Amino acid sequence: MNSFNFLLNEKNNKHCGITMVLDKGLGFETSKSLMELSGEYVDYLKFGWGTTAIQDFNLVKDKVEMYKSFDMNPYVGGTLFEIAIIQSKLSEFFEEADKLGFETLEVSDGTIDIPHSEKIDYISQAKDLGFEVLSEVGKKDLEKDNKISLDDRINYIKKELDAGSSKIIIEAREGGKSIGVFDEKGNAKGNEVDYILNKTKSDDLIWEAPNKNQQVYFILKIGHDVNLGNISSDEIISLETLRRGLRGDTLGKL
Amino acid sequence: MNSFNFLLNEKNNKHCGITMVLDKGLGFETSKSLMELSGEYVDYLKFGWGTTAIQDFNLVKDKVEMYKSFDMNPYVGGTLFEIAIIQSKLSEFFEEADKLGFETLEVSDGTIDIPHSEKIDYISQAKDLGFEVLSEVGKKDLEKDNKISLDDRINYIKKELDAGSSKIIIEAREGGKSIGVFDEKGNAKGNEVDYILNKTKSDDLIWEAPNKNQQVYFILKIGHDVNLGNISSDEIISLETLRRGLRGDTLGKL
Amino acid sequence: MNSFNFLLNEKNNKHCGITMVLDKGLGFETSKSLMELSGEYVDYLKFGWGTTAIQDFNLVKDKVEMYKSFDMNPYVGGTLFEIAIIQSKLSEFFEEADKLGFETLEVSDGTIDIPHSEKIDYISQAKDLGFEVLSEVGKKDLEKDNKISLDDRINYIKKELDAGSSKIIIEAREGGKSIGVFDEKGNAKGNEVDYILNKTKSDDLIWEAPNKNQQVYFILKIGHDVNLGNISSDEIISLETLRRGLRGDTLGKL
Repeated sequence: MNSFNFLLNEKNNKHCGITMVLDKGLGFETSKSLMELSGEYVDYLKFGWGTTAIQDFNLVKDKVEMYKSFDMNPYVGGTLFEIAIIQSKLSEFFEEADKLGFETLEVSDGTIDIPHSEKIDYISQAKDLGFEVLSEVGKKDLEKDNKISLDDRINYIKKELDAGSSKIIIEAREGGKSIGVFDEKGNAKGNEVDYILNKTKSDDLIWEAPNKNQQVYFILKIGHDVNLGNISSDEIISLETLRRGLRGDTLGKL
Repeated sequence: MNSFNFLLNEKNNKHCGITMVLDKGLGFETSKSLMELSGEYVDYLKFGWGTTAIQDFNLVKDKVEMYKSFDMNPYVGGTLFEIAIIQSKLSEFFEEADKLGFETLEVSDGTIDIPHSEKIDYISQAKDLGFEVLSEVGKKDLEKDNKISLDDRINYIKKELDAGSSKIIIEAREGGKSIGVFDEKGNAKGNEVDYILNKTKSDDLIWEAPNKNQQVYFILKIGHDVNLGNISSDEIISLETLRRGLRGDTLGKL
Repeated sequence: MNSFNFLLNEKNNKHCGITMVLDKGLGFETSKSLMELSGEYVDYLKFGWGTTAIQDFNLVKDKVEMYKSFDMNPYVGGTLFEIAIIQSKLSEFFEEADKLGFETLEVSDGTIDIPHSEKIDYISQAKDLGFEVLSEVGKKDLEKDNKISLDDRINYIKKELDAGSSKIIIEAREGGKSIGVFDEKGNAKGNEVDYILNKTKSDDLIWEAPNKNQQVYFILKIGHDVNLGNISSDEIISLETLRRGLRGDTLGKL
C-alpha cells in the first residue's frame, strides 16, 4: 500500500504506459536498492550500448536476474548487437544473451549501415529463437539521421513490426538533443511527431525522451500512458509522478 | 573528528545556515549510505512533490525514521499538500503525514490558485496540529509567477511568518531557470534579490538554489550561513565546502 | 571473464590510458558497489577539493583503503593542499595524508598565487617524503587563467615534470566550460590543444574532460589511451566504452 494512497483516484492509481530505463553502469547494490523503491514502474531495463562487454559475466547475470525479479524485461543496448553484426558473430551473441538470462533483445542500425531487408532478417532470426525483439529506428549520427525521410521512417516502423518487433524505439540517445524528433535545444519538432503519429499507432512506439521537458511534452500530447525510453535511473520516480499528475508540470492537465 | 580538521578555523569549523535537500527517489540503502557521510550537513530533507504517493507506506516510514536519526527534519513537498486541498482531503493528509512520522509540512500554492487568506488558514491549521510549517512563495508556472509583484511577494512572506511558518521558501523548482529570482540562464536577478532582502529578514527565508552558480551567488552575497534549498542529494558535500571556503569558488572570499 | 568478451579484439580487450575519477561525496556503500562493477577502469580517484576536511577521519580512511583494494591511487584534491599552504601547515598536511593512507598527492596553484619556483619546491618536498605527485597547471578563475600564455603553460609543465610530478593535470574543473582549453560551450579550442601537444608528450598529461563531448574529442584526436580526468563517478563505464569503441560516438572510428 502506497503512502497517501487516498490521494490517488481511478485515473491515476496505477502505472500505465511503458517506461524503459537506461542503466549505464550502476553498482549492483545501488540498482537493487533503487528497484526496491521504484522497480514496479519500470517495464524495460536497458544495459546501455556496449557496457556489458566490459562487465564481469556473473555480475551482469546477477543483475539480469535481479531486474527480472522486479518484473521488468532487461535487455542489451542495440550497439552491442551492431558490433556482433560487424564481426559476424551473431549466433555467439544470441547464445551469450541467452546464457546471461536476457529474454529481450534490441535490433538496431544506429551506427552500422545495412540494407533494411537485412535488419528485417535479424529481427526474424531473434524472434525465431524465442527472444522478444525491440527494434530501433534512427541514426546516432546527426547527418545520417537527417537523410532519413519521415516516410522512410514510417515505412521502416511498419516493416519491423510486421517482422515481429514488439515495439519500435524512436532514437534520441542519452542526450536527446539534435537527434530524431528533437532540435538542438532538445525541444520536440511538433510537426514531425504529428506526422509519425498520424501514420502509426502510438502504442507500437517507444519514444526515447531522456529530458524532463520531453517527458512532459509527450505525456501532455499523447497521454499519461505514452511509452517512453532512455529514462535516467535517477528519474524513474519523477517520470511516474509526471504520468500520474503528481508533479506541477502535469498536475491538473491530464 | 574530521580528517584534516586542523585546516578548519573558528570561522569555518562548523555547519551554519540551513541546507534543505531534495530526495526525488533515492533507494533506502543509497540514501542511508549518503547520510552516514553527509547527514550532519542537512537540516531539512524534502521528499519532492508527489513522490511519496507512489512509494510504499513502510518504505517511506522507514526513510523518515532514518533521516530523523541523522537529526534532520524530513517533510513532504508542497505539491502533495496542494493535491490534498484540491481533493478536500486535508484532514486525511495531516493524519497520514503524522502516521509516517513527519513533524514538518510544507504549505504552498505553486500550482493551485487559492486566495492568500485560505493559504494562511492552512498554515495555522497545520501549526495547531503541532507540525512545524515551511511555506513557499512563488508559482511553478512562469507566466503566473511573473504576475506576482515583488511587493505582493513580500506581503505574502510577512503574513505567512505571522501565521506561524518557521521559514519561507522562495520557489525555484528543481531546475532553477526562468523562475522566481532566476533568469532563463539560471542567473540571479540581483535587483529582485536586493529588493526582497531589504524588506525581509534573510534568516526567515530559504532560497531554492539547485545550481552551483546560484549557491555561490547567495553565499558570497548573503554569507556562508545563508539558507539554501532544493540542493541535489549529489551536492550536499559540495555545498558544505562552498559554505566553508573549501572550494575554489569561495576560498578566500568569505 | 567479461560478458560478450568474444566481441572484444586485440585492439580493445584491455583498459588503456589513465582514467581519473572525481568523488565529490559518495556514500561508502555506494562507492564500493560502484567499484565492484567498474573499479578496474579507474587509475586515480580524487577526493574533490576540500571535501575530506568535512568528512570523518575514519570514514575517509576506510574509503582510501577500499579504493586501494581495487588497485587505484586515491588522492586529495589540490585545493586542500593550497589551503594548507595558505595556513602554513604543510607538514601537518603531509602527515595527515599519510595517516589516512594516501600515497599520491596533488600540488596545484589553481586558487592561490605563488611564484612557480615555490610550487616546484612543494613538488620536490612531497616527492622526497615518498608521495607520488600529480601537479596541476591552470587557474580556476577565468580571468586569471586567461593571463597564462600557452608558452608559460608549457614551461610550467616541463619544470613540474623535471621536479618529479608523475603527470601534469590540465585544469578544467568539474564543469569544463570557459576554462583552460575549453570555450564557454565546453568545446575544445583545437589550436590550443595542438600547441600543447606539439611541445609536450601526451603521455605526461591528464586532460580534465568532465563532459562526454570532451572525452570523445580527446579519444578521437589523441587515441583511446589518452589520459583523462575529472570523470564523474556516473560515467566510468561510459568512458571505458568510448575508449574501446563500444559506443556509437567512437565505434568504427578508432
